[in-house]
Amino acid sequence: MPARRFTFGRADEATHPDHIRATISEFISTFIFVFAGEGSVLALGQIYRDTPITASGQVAVALAHALALFVAVAVGYNISGGHVNPAVTLGLLVGGRISFVRAIFFWIAQLVGAVVASLLLKLCTHGMRPVGFSVAHGVGEGNALVLEIIMTFGLVYTVYATAIDPKRGSLGIIAPLAIGLIVGANILTGGPFDGASMNPARAFGPALVGGRWKNHWIYWVGPLIGAVIAGLLYEYVIIPTEAPHTHQPLAPEDY
Amino acid sequence: MPARRFTFGRADEATHPDHIRATISEFISTFIFVFAGEGSVLALGQIYRDTPITASGQVAVALAHALALFVAVAVGYNISGGHVNPAVTLGLLVGGRISFVRAIFFWIAQLVGAVVASLLLKLCTHGMRPVGFSVAHGVGEGNALVLEIIMTFGLVYTVYATAIDPKRGSLGIIAPLAIGLIVGANILTGGPFDGASMNPARAFGPALVGGRWKNHWIYWVGPLIGAVIAGLLYEYVIIPTEAPHTHQPLAPEDY
Amino acid sequence: MPARRFTFGRADEATHPDHIRATISEFISTFIFVFAGEGSVLALGQIYRDTPITASGQVAVALAHALALFVAVAVGYNISGGHVNPAVTLGLLVGGRISFVRAIFFWIAQLVGAVVASLLLKLCTHGMRPVGFSVAHGVGEGNALVLEIIMTFGLVYTVYATAIDPKRGSLGIIAPLAIGLIVGANILTGGPFDGASMNPARAFGPALVGGRWKNHWIYWVGPLIGAVIAGLLYEYVIIPTEAPHTHQPLAPEDY
Amino acid sequence: MPARRFTFGRADEATHPDHIRATISEFISTFIFVFAGEGSVLALGQIYRDTPITASGQVAVALAHALALFVAVAVGYNISGGHVNPAVTLGLLVGGRISFVRAIFFWIAQLVGAVVASLLLKLCTHGMRPVGFSVAHGVGEGNALVLEIIMTFGLVYTVYATAIDPKRGSLGIIAPLAIGLIVGANILTGGPFDGASMNPARAFGPALVGGRWKNHWIYWVGPLIGAVIAGLLYEYVIIPTEAPHTHQPLAPEDY
Repeated sequence: MPARRFTFGRADEATHPDHIRATISEFISTFIFVFAGEGSVLALGQIYRDTPITASGQVAVALAHALALFVAVAVGYNISGGHVNPAVTLGLLVGGRISFVRAIFFWIAQLVGAVVASLLLKLCTHGMRPVGFSVAHGVGEGNALVLEIIMTFGLVYTVYATAIDPKRGSLGIIAPLAIGLIVGANILTGGPFDGASMNPARAFGPALVGGRWKNHWIYWVGPLIGAVIAGLLYEYVIIPTEAPHTHQPLAPEDY
Repeated sequence: MPARRFTFGRADEATHPDHIRATISEFISTFIFVFAGEGSVLALGQIYRDTPITASGQVAVALAHALALFVAVAVGYNISGGHVNPAVTLGLLVGGRISFVRAIFFWIAQLVGAVVASLLLKLCTHGMRPVGFSVAHGVGEGNALVLEIIMTFGLVYTVYATAIDPKRGSLGIIAPLAIGLIVGANILTGGPFDGASMNPARAFGPALVGGRWKNHWIYWVGPLIGAVIAGLLYEYVIIPTEAPHTHQPLAPEDY
Repeated sequence: MPARRFTFGRADEATHPDHIRATISEFISTFIFVFAGEGSVLALGQIYRDTPITASGQVAVALAHALALFVAVAVGYNISGGHVNPAVTLGLLVGGRISFVRAIFFWIAQLVGAVVASLLLKLCTHGMRPVGFSVAHGVGEGNALVLEIIMTFGLVYTVYATAIDPKRGSLGIIAPLAIGLIVGANILTGGPFDGASMNPARAFGPALVGGRWKNHWIYWVGPLIGAVIAGLLYEYVIIPTEAPHTHQPLAPEDY
Repeated sequence: MPARRFTFGRADEATHPDHIRATISEFISTFIFVFAGEGSVLALGQIYRDTPITASGQVAVALAHALALFVAVAVGYNISGGHVNPAVTLGLLVGGRISFVRAIFFWIAQLVGAVVASLLLKLCTHGMRPVGFSVAHGVGEGNALVLEIIMTFGLVYTVYATAIDPKRGSLGIIAPLAIGLIVGANILTGGPFDGASMNPARAFGPALVGGRWKNHWIYWVGPLIGAVIAGLLYEYVIIPTEAPHTHQPLAPEDY
């Protein structure tokens, strides 16, 4: 008994001012997140030049991602829902929480935001080459794929529990914080193994601008699988006690 | 004058959909917490291989636990109460806040969640052996036992004050954050002495998968004693000003 | 035009159950804070033995204090107000926010809580001698005194603005977080100069148990002066727009 | 279709008690922020003397700024709006959110607060010379200018989205946290390149007291440009769905 149905969106959706604003919001939120996230990796490169990652470097990168994602989600929360991540958008699409048309616009905005952030980082840092993600020595691509699936599952489950669940109540106030900080916690775990992306846009921008495509498919396939599992599980197993209600894909509180 | 009475639960409790959902929620929350917590310890092993713990390693491990526990409690908050810890469940049982049947289900879910997280960590890391907890050189088992009792007392006292106390008011909004961060603070204190578990499930999963049972009893006995003291103290000394009210063990707001 | 008047308290105050509960609450909150705070300093000693403080050690100590104080304030917030600090209690006394009798009880509870925490830390760590605070080489006692005054001014000003001000509104929800984190920020500043105590109880417990009294007067005089300045400034300059209202020293929401 | 119009303020604004209180509040908030922020840089100097910045030093400085700014914004939130930054004040001025007279007073209060904090830091640290900001070796002034523009854009966009937007709802509760933490994230990115100021007052105080004016113009021009872009974009593109309403520049909830 699904609470919501998949929807293609309304005919006028793409040109509705609220829709355009939401798409701009996703672009800016993803830009802010990728600029700080990838920027914190380049900052370590600026400090150390050719030194392997350390525990304090890990903490710096995890904090930069956690804090910036918290803010990126918060600033978009009431406009676009603050997805900031194509995997989150897919997780909400399979649960019927946004329309397919809206998802397409969000994906484009997120990818463009990540690319622009990577380009401007290159400009600000006097031409440093963005790093992005790759699998560490001694870790297989299969290991990394499972890692990305599990970590993104946790992220999208958190999005549903704190920002979507009709019974979330006052939990919604700290939803952006929970979403940002689960990514920080997961980077402290997955960072030394595969970088811990959980976000195809976060991986794509630096890959394109830095021309680094090794292992790149993992950072698309893993997060998207994890997001689909979390979205289906939460929507069809955890939520169903709610009374059925009509779907209104464009209402801002619909996130 | 106890505010609540110990209860064995209702006959239909175990098969009620909300009860099943709450049990799944405890499994997933504990999975998310142990995956990030134990994973952050393995991440240090991946970075350094055979180096002793450092202050920055301590910060990384404490932050991973604090952030992941905040999120694990938050995502379960409105479904199961977000215990994520057999000691917390015991602390609420002795205060009459959940039924015995419900506690049994939660304990199983928490232990299984921790074991599955440890197994998947082993898989993702190309076979690294989970580390879990043990007592440091120069620290006695008795020292570590008292340490676990005190730290878990603080944790369960925090659960009661922020998430259970009928007078908590808007404090409930930041309860998951307080619960996560007291564990982070305590790890920064107890970490170099006994690892600072405060949670039998967090200790059990890696112990089983990694086959490390040295000092293991401490990480059960200590947290359970600390939780019982905190639960009894808060329920029967700090709360009693509230007017007596009927116990409804299955209501979501009953946590 | 003072909003509140200094009061000696009601005759039955000391034996009122709510008052006893508030005093127990101050004892436990200060215990939790000092155990984690001083414990994080001993934890560095356990890791490094005789190495000077590092930036990552600073981060570890600052985080332990910040997170533990956040929780200590939160768990006492609706019971005693969550002072956790004799200087905060003095700051609220000079603003007429608590009675003199209540302040005396709180001061005793805070000092005893800090001493018990220091004793139990010594027990848990196989006899490590608590460290407490002293002035660093190259820093004068006068420098340290001014530093403690300024940092405690910031702390008590934060208590007033977020937890006392009648116009605080929803800011009250994040008051415990603000109070904890300003101490964390100030430790990152004052730590290498004088340890950054801002709290006579935090300094007294380890000094008594560790037998270290060098420069100890600074950690009483500085915080108490800073607290008085902040309390008077906020109460008589920042607040006065509020309409006058009757003083009810025992109401929990009176903090 | 601008939602608000530029205003010069009311004739009696400068002498109105609420206005004077707001100006004092900006002074104290900026003092608290600069004291902890610049102080954390001096603290590293006290620990290491002549060592280059490290990842853990970066984390310490970023945390000190993030936590102190969160608190500085929170304590001023209901009095002055908690700008703590001439660039934020300018961003709100171009959106018509404060009057020009009020902005002038805030700018003076912010600059004086930063200078007093820097002077007292020099006093407390036995004469250490404040450091402030400069551009790192290998980074051009043009790079640093673009970096300051982008990072301040993110900060002021966050201020608008979480504290100003009429549709922000409960997001306002975590606004001070979001504003503080985006600065923390940006310091982890921009720190090793240009120090990551995003705030002319934060740069001016130490520059004046320490007599360091190299590259100083960047820390005025960059933040002011970034703030203007964010203010205009948010006010005239993101907000417009709100119904027009009358401007009341002195109401505290007007921030």
